[in-house]
Amino acid sequence: MQPVLSEEAEVLVRFNEADPLGIVWHGNYIRYFEDGREAFGAKYRLRYLDIFAEGYTVPIVNVECNYKRPLRYGDRVLVETRYIPTEAAKIRFEYTLYNAATREVVCTGASVQVFLDKEADILQLTVPAFFAEWKKQWGVS
Amino acid sequence: MQPVLSEEAEVLVRFNEADPLGIVWHGNYIRYFEDGREAFGAKYRLRYLDIFAEGYTVPIVNVECNYKRPLRYGDRVLVETRYIPTEAAKIRFEYTLYNAATREVVCTGASVQVFLDKEADILQLTVPAFFAEWKKQWGVS
Amino acid sequence: MQPVLSEEAEVLVRFNEADPLGIVWHGNYIRYFEDGREAFGAKYRLRYLDIFAEGYTVPIVNVECNYKRPLRYGDRVLVETRYIPTEAAKIRFEYTLYNAATREVVCTGASVQVFLDKEADILQLTVPAFFAEWKKQWGVS
Amino acid sequence: MQPVLSEEAEVLVRFNEADPLGIVWHGNYIRYFEDGREAFGAKYRLRYLDIFAEGYTVPIVNVECNYKRPLRYGDRVLVETRYIPTEAAKIRFEYTLYNAATREVVCTGASVQVFLDKEADILQLTVPAFFAEWKKQWGVS
Repeated sequence: MQPVLSEEAEVLVRFNEADPLGIVWHGNYIRYFEDGREAFGAKYRLRYLDIFAEGYTVPIVNVECNYKRPLRYGDRVLVETRYIPTEAAKIRFEYTLYNAATREVVCTGASVQVFLDKEADILQLTVPAFFAEWKKQWGVS
Repeated sequence: MQPVLSEEAEVLVRFNEADPLGIVWHGNYIRYFEDGREAFGAKYRLRYLDIFAEGYTVPIVNVECNYKRPLRYGDRVLVETRYIPTEAAKIRFEYTLYNAATREVVCTGASVQVFLDKEADILQLTVPAFFAEWKKQWGVS
Repeated sequence: MQPVLSEEAEVLVRFNEADPLGIVWHGNYIRYFEDGREAFGAKYRLRYLDIFAEGYTVPIVNVECNYKRPLRYGDRVLVETRYIPTEAAKIRFEYTLYNAATREVVCTGASVQVFLDKEADILQLTVPAFFAEWKKQWGVS
Repeated sequence: MQPVLSEEAEVLVRFNEADPLGIVWHGNYIRYFEDGREAFGAKYRLRYLDIFAEGYTVPIVNVECNYKRPLRYGDRVLVETRYIPTEAAKIRFEYTLYNAATREVVCTGASVQVFLDKEADILQLTVPAFFAEWKKQWGVS
């Protein structure tokens, strides 16, 4: 059985992230996912900058977002980011966003990233060595 | 057989929409989807403002995005927005984004919206009368 | 002599805030100013939400920004926000942004806000009572 | 007497550019200025991409914005961008934004850009040859 790698980040909803209906514009949740990934990366040494340093970029190839309850300016959001093991040359994360005050789920989502060679911009069909090492270090596949 | 309701909008990729890798940041495609919906709405009289005028808001409850090829600052994007018929009290759109120069598909996606009573903020479980009328007018379910 | 009211907020530069040149897009500094004002408001009870609760909105009527050095993804920014006393029915803030690592000044700026009656949307030509009280409380003009 | 170089661009206010007060968030005007500069650049061959091709980047070192009247979702904005001659190794633009429907001025502003060598990232203290040529071509200083 594998350990569950996850991290929780707290994000404060900015005034400029809410729309004329007074709620966070749905596109801004994609930023919260990125904030979550970065917090995860800070904990597990998998930030964009760590990956760049290994010679790769990890563009998003799929993202999905299910909105459950609105967020408003001034709300605090807990972004839980979970690493989902996969054998493929991909990184998959799932997200659950909570209203920090009520602990209600406000959103769930997922993203998939692939590996590109940073210089040649070539899609990697096999798991890069550094990431195989990363998985081993944290005991996940 | 129902007609296919669709509209194509052209969007110019802004400098400020591209990220340090020189490509459009993935979250910005959600804006392009919205641009596409608005162009669709302008053609078929289903803009946010039209819907507000009927007493409803139509928040997004699901969005997904599949990234196929990068977009860069200066590129022109064709956003094709298609109405997908459904019996539910929802609006579903599918999107195909093309690089206007190469006609290659750069992204596909979909979104689902629900109806809320604008004043009471209550989810509508049945199709609002104005939208039933809209469907009838355009010959779709 | 009046006390200097100021607050310092730390902001982490997000990947999606940097542009294709690898540096923070200049328009995003306006967000950092807003983050600074909100941190100031949290300390001195002058957040947007506090002001709304008093029946006013405080739209920005002027903003200026002088860029001294670039910021990059991953940098930490210190946003120093200072209240600048004025007799007019306005709120003036000045900002100094530092690179948290090097303590170099990366940007200076200023903003001016006016008071609008929240319901009637009418510009206030005299200082609202709640703000006169706020000034008195903190010993500033 | 020099000719006045200027261009007008029309921008449609997006739903996601307006804030919880229903008006365009002030930071988004900086985008409209950039849209204006790009339209100007398209007319006079001075887009970012043109300048990059000459080996330079032109970061903004100063921007200011004076807000006169609110803009709302659905409004059309005319962005007038005027080139302001200067002897310095800088590019200065002034902007006037109009509500396209009412022709009222909604905002005025200005920006200053400097020249950096694209490779070495070095500030140019004298006007680059390509830009001296550009000025000559259009009859401005």
